[in-house]
Amino acid sequence: MAERRRMDYSVHREILDEGAVDEMAKRSDSKPSQCEKFKKSMRCSGPRLKSCLLGSVPVASWLPRYSIRENALGDLISGISVGIMHLPQGMAYALLASVPPVFGLYSSFYPVLIYFIFGTSKHISIGTFAVLSVMIGGVTERLAPDSNFMTWDNVTNSSIIDIISRDAERVRVAAAVTFLSGLFQILLGLVQFGFVVTYLSEPLVRGYTTGAAIHVIVSQLKYTFGISPVKYSGPLSLIYTVLEICSLIPQTNIGTLVVSIVAIIGPHPQRRSSNSYLGKKLPVPIPCGIVIATIISWQVNLADRYKVDVVGLIPSGLQPPVLPTASLFGQVIGDAFALSVVGYGIAISLGRIFALKYGYKVDSNQELIALGLSNAVGGIFQCFAISCSMSRSMVQESTGGKTQVAGALSAIVILFITLWIGALFEDLPKAVLAAIIFVNLHGMMKQFMDVPALWRSNKVDMAIWVVTFILTLLLNPDLGLAAAIGFSMLTVIFRTQLPQYSILGQVPDTDIYRPLEDYDQVKQVPGILIFRSSATLYFANAEMYQEALGEKSGIDITNILSAKKKLEVKRTRHEKKNAKKAAKRKAVDMVEQKEIAIIEMDAEPDPSLPRAIILDLSPVNFLDTVGVKALRSIQRDYGDICIEVLLAGCLTGVVDNLQTGGFFNDKVTKSCLFSTVHDAVLHCKSLVLVSRCIASHQGYFY
Amino acid sequence: MAERRRMDYSVHREILDEGAVDEMAKRSDSKPSQCEKFKKSMRCSGPRLKSCLLGSVPVASWLPRYSIRENALGDLISGISVGIMHLPQGMAYALLASVPPVFGLYSSFYPVLIYFIFGTSKHISIGTFAVLSVMIGGVTERLAPDSNFMTWDNVTNSSIIDIISRDAERVRVAAAVTFLSGLFQILLGLVQFGFVVTYLSEPLVRGYTTGAAIHVIVSQLKYTFGISPVKYSGPLSLIYTVLEICSLIPQTNIGTLVVSIVAIIGPHPQRRSSNSYLGKKLPVPIPCGIVIATIISWQVNLADRYKVDVVGLIPSGLQPPVLPTASLFGQVIGDAFALSVVGYGIAISLGRIFALKYGYKVDSNQELIALGLSNAVGGIFQCFAISCSMSRSMVQESTGGKTQVAGALSAIVILFITLWIGALFEDLPKAVLAAIIFVNLHGMMKQFMDVPALWRSNKVDMAIWVVTFILTLLLNPDLGLAAAIGFSMLTVIFRTQLPQYSILGQVPDTDIYRPLEDYDQVKQVPGILIFRSSATLYFANAEMYQEALGEKSGIDITNILSAKKKLEVKRTRHEKKNAKKAAKRKAVDMVEQKEIAIIEMDAEPDPSLPRAIILDLSPVNFLDTVGVKALRSIQRDYGDICIEVLLAGCLTGVVDNLQTGGFFNDKVTKSCLFSTVHDAVLHCKSLVLVSRCIASHQGYFY
Repeated sequence: MAERRRMDYSVHREILDEGAVDEMAKRSDSKPSQCEKFKKSMRCSGPRLKSCLLGSVPVASWLPRYSIRENALGDLISGISVGIMHLPQGMAYALLASVPPVFGLYSSFYPVLIYFIFGTSKHISIGTFAVLSVMIGGVTERLAPDSNFMTWDNVTNSSIIDIISRDAERVRVAAAVTFLSGLFQILLGLVQFGFVVTYLSEPLVRGYTTGAAIHVIVSQLKYTFGISPVKYSGPLSLIYTVLEICSLIPQTNIGTLVVSIVAIIGPHPQRRSSNSYLGKKLPVPIPCGIVIATIISWQVNLADRYKVDVVGLIPSGLQPPVLPTASLFGQVIGDAFALSVVGYGIAISLGRIFALKYGYKVDSNQELIALGLSNAVGGIFQCFAISCSMSRSMVQESTGGKTQVAGALSAIVILFITLWIGALFEDLPKAVLAAIIFVNLHGMMKQFMDVPALWRSNKVDMAIWVVTFILTLLLNPDLGLAAAIGFSMLTVIFRTQLPQYSILGQVPDTDIYRPLEDYDQVKQVPGILIFRSSATLYFANAEMYQEALGEKSGIDITNILSAKKKLEVKRTRHEKKNAKKAAKRKAVDMVEQKEIAIIEMDAEPDPSLPRAIILDLSPVNFLDTVGVKALRSIQRDYGDICIEVLLAGCLTGVVDNLQTGGFFNDKVTKSCLFSTVHDAVLHCKSLVLVSRCIASHQGYFY
Repeated sequence: MAERRRMDYSVHREILDEGAVDEMAKRSDSKPSQCEKFKKSMRCSGPRLKSCLLGSVPVASWLPRYSIRENALGDLISGISVGIMHLPQGMAYALLASVPPVFGLYSSFYPVLIYFIFGTSKHISIGTFAVLSVMIGGVTERLAPDSNFMTWDNVTNSSIIDIISRDAERVRVAAAVTFLSGLFQILLGLVQFGFVVTYLSEPLVRGYTTGAAIHVIVSQLKYTFGISPVKYSGPLSLIYTVLEICSLIPQTNIGTLVVSIVAIIGPHPQRRSSNSYLGKKLPVPIPCGIVIATIISWQVNLADRYKVDVVGLIPSGLQPPVLPTASLFGQVIGDAFALSVVGYGIAISLGRIFALKYGYKVDSNQELIALGLSNAVGGIFQCFAISCSMSRSMVQESTGGKTQVAGALSAIVILFITLWIGALFEDLPKAVLAAIIFVNLHGMMKQFMDVPALWRSNKVDMAIWVVTFILTLLLNPDLGLAAAIGFSMLTVIFRTQLPQYSILGQVPDTDIYRPLEDYDQVKQVPGILIFRSSATLYFANAEMYQEALGEKSGIDITNILSAKKKLEVKRTRHEKKNAKKAAKRKAVDMVEQKEIAIIEMDAEPDPSLPRAIILDLSPVNFLDTVGVKALRSIQRDYGDICIEVLLAGCLTGVVDNLQTGGFFNDKVTKSCLFSTVHDAVLHCKSLVLVSRCIASHQGYFY
């Protein structure tokens, strides 16, 4: 059965140039015009309208078909698990965003409900996300810094910070930037801009999240050590902050540090639930860590006795919606845009992973709109920007969540906590929340392992990872992302600028041509030079292409041409002299003169030069005018020294480019294009035969 | 003779997959390591050192071989012609740079001499250039605006401008920015950065110079109308300036306007010398326009009687060198960089055109160093930044200039004018200089004709032209250039994101495969789907590739896979049931059960689906990890529904990418790679034969 009956590769046909192929295969000219295509895409019909409406409110299409028997139990367990995870994460990430912890709980509620209605991914857990939170934190601390809220306390005779009005201002800022980022996302979704996510390649996203995680960790060190460093913003702020923290380490609050260490090395529900056996047996993770920490803190009275910073007032109940402060929009427009792109990028990449795993589709534009609505509505309810969290999504999936219903249930759990038991956590030390963040970032730190893996598989991708990471560290997550995307695009340009130029030779007895330097047993076809670049030919490498052709072929075209020009000048002088002589001697020695001319003509093609150059253009994706000009000048220059230039393996689009670019004229027709290199080689060989024939005939006549 | 003896295309060989080709052609592994290459390039030897030294001072190599008999006359005539052209252009472009006219003459002298020593282009005329001058003007007017030099005149009781100290400051600024741009050029040349010029594609340079020409014209309108608009700077300043000028038109100085109109419609030496018959007969253009204008102005006393603005004081003689004001460097660093890139870009593109025409080589890095030294030394002698001027270079070439000696002679002409007859031009109206600028820009305005030509030949290049033009208009020449380069690079990315995806069919009776939509007579091979994208496969289009494959093939992989999963679930349930039953009934009906399984297995491959998919990867230039992953997931997904995926036409580099990217494993080996599509097709066909054989045998057994 393993034995395969070999069919041989056997082809017998005429040599076909491009014109012959066109004739044989009847090239069709009629293509639907752009206008018609546009009309077609704009046509409106009943079913189309319905599917469009259903597409924009996905819940209407899947909820009626929700199978309670199959999904309900899984969704319930998963919803409760994720809801309980929302509690510590929401509070911890609120610290990152520099707003009171309760707003983290709000952010885990409203947006999740909105996404339930509009989202298309069944498995991602929408809500607070560390990277976005630290970006929000950058904005809030920039626009509402401590220094703006200093008041002089007459009792202690020192300046103290008016924390209440500061926090209120920060919440306003966070809500404004969140609302605006939501608007951006809706707008991008409406103009079908979901494709931007294609620029966020995997190495870039992973390098970026790792870099952002370092930002998150650094921003939490103050809670771990119980110190109050000055807040820096702008490029390089990470470095300044680290230096500041190092200088403040002697002032560490020992009580806080002890709490931190215990919290970090202590057991964690997430860690357990996702990996160990116990976690798998216990589908609902109990946030035992924060419960124990709260009880201890409350009993020992850490806050007063050891000056350990605790969460503080958690108001019960929800707050009425407030329109965001529009006057702030101007100052946060850049941050809002960065938030919208990053949030979307993270959510869609995770959503796609799950979609691939479970075989359904995530609509990238609808996701943008869903996230945008979540953020916009969230902004009105004073939430901060959300995306999806890797750790929660993993739990949601592993505990059996099958649809968006799990998300909705988790929101209800958070609502329950907010309304009734939130106030119990007022004594929770902030250091414990910081520890929770560190533990959650554990997975991201593992991404450092990407670097050696990428080093082995693809160096350019490794460069993208490392550069993205460094740019994110140095320029902060917002600017860093833009710079990293710019860099990853530049790599494409660089790649086209460092192509492999090679001379091809024939694999003996086949029609296959391979680079001479890669194979030992390929042979150059005598008198024919086959040249290939591994990249497209366009403005950024057209000149290099010409240079490489000269170098690889060993033909110094400039020298030969200038030598030829000198020769011509001499010849014209010679002819003039002869003409003068002839005028005297009249038509006596006409024959002699002719002979001289013929001898000179014959002397021209240098025997060391190839008869023909075949340019294998199969790797060329498109040609711009510069590329066409380069080819034309190659054709002309080598033509001048009697070397025929043939093109092989052009895509249909490239042939069109050649045509509209004016490559063809009276002399150069489609007959210099061949669909394969072998066709071109055979054509050259047959020409040599013919010319030898002619030469012998001529020899016969003279 | 036209009858060509046709050789037929006849190949008979085995079907070869990539592994077989590697074996047959003996793929070589040993490549010179990067380290060795580096060592080789760093090796130092006597001849190498000599050629390096000669390369950096080209005059030392060509001047000793200067043939007086052949070149001297042409160079002399050409030098004098160009020198005379330097006079009006130098003075006019000094106006653009907002410095006194005499500094334009200096700029036509020192840099030209330096370039004579270090330059490698024989035909370009180095010196003042309109675009650079207007960029310099932007800097000088920003750093030394009129408002800084207002003093209160007690006599007229109005504020007047202290012109002398203002101009001195402007000269300082111009010299500083010129010196700095020269340093940048030298630096870029030393690090072999000449390749940046490849980003300045022809459509970009032409769109850019046209846009810059509009800036030049607008900046000169004030002299034409004799008005004094407020100077704007920064983005959109062009629009503000035009509005300002329109609002000031009622205040036009009639005398100045008359002079302008006469000067513009009057005869011009450049126009004549380059085009008409008279110009060809008169190799030395006589700047009759400015001579006549000066005489009239002096006789009629335009300056006093009609308040026509004239050139004013022209000091005789040269000025001692002054070190540039280093304290200004910080404020002009961006402008200096823009100047260095633009100046180099213009000079090298023109230099290359002539080099191509006359068959010699221009060394791009040496050109950078030559221009850099010209600017740096020029900056010390209070010149402003120079490049080469199109109009002068054309005259230099057409009047018979053959080497850099022509340029040196033109510098001597300018020296002569500066020393002795410069002062005669003090009465020349500035409006005449403005008219000279307009006439000189005549050629650039013709570049608008590029747009329809590019529309016909290449729409993307037209987009680059138009966008560059608009960006230059709106963002000014410095920022506009950066934005335009960014845009032209983005077009490359966009092009890879809008590839033509096509299903290929066989041209009957050949081994050639062409897109079905382009040809009427190509036929799809039954049971085999051949798919090709016209672009490289990488992060920005990997997902689109997968989607397009699904769309074009009509195979909804997600649906089929989820259907299959459901079936599997059902089957496992069924099997469990059976197993339970079997546990009861024991091994009685084992055979029956086996049959069911086999029937289900056989039912799987849908007859409407193709047996195999061949991905033609010949247009792929490189693969990144995202691309490899996309191919792997295609292989896996389609493999799951029993469709074999084969790759054809990979470049050697792409095969390497596949290998390091982990595409191959135990199941997927190099035997799924074929060097041509036809090989892959034949392989599939032979497989079908084999499987049919097996099927019939199996049928026989059961």
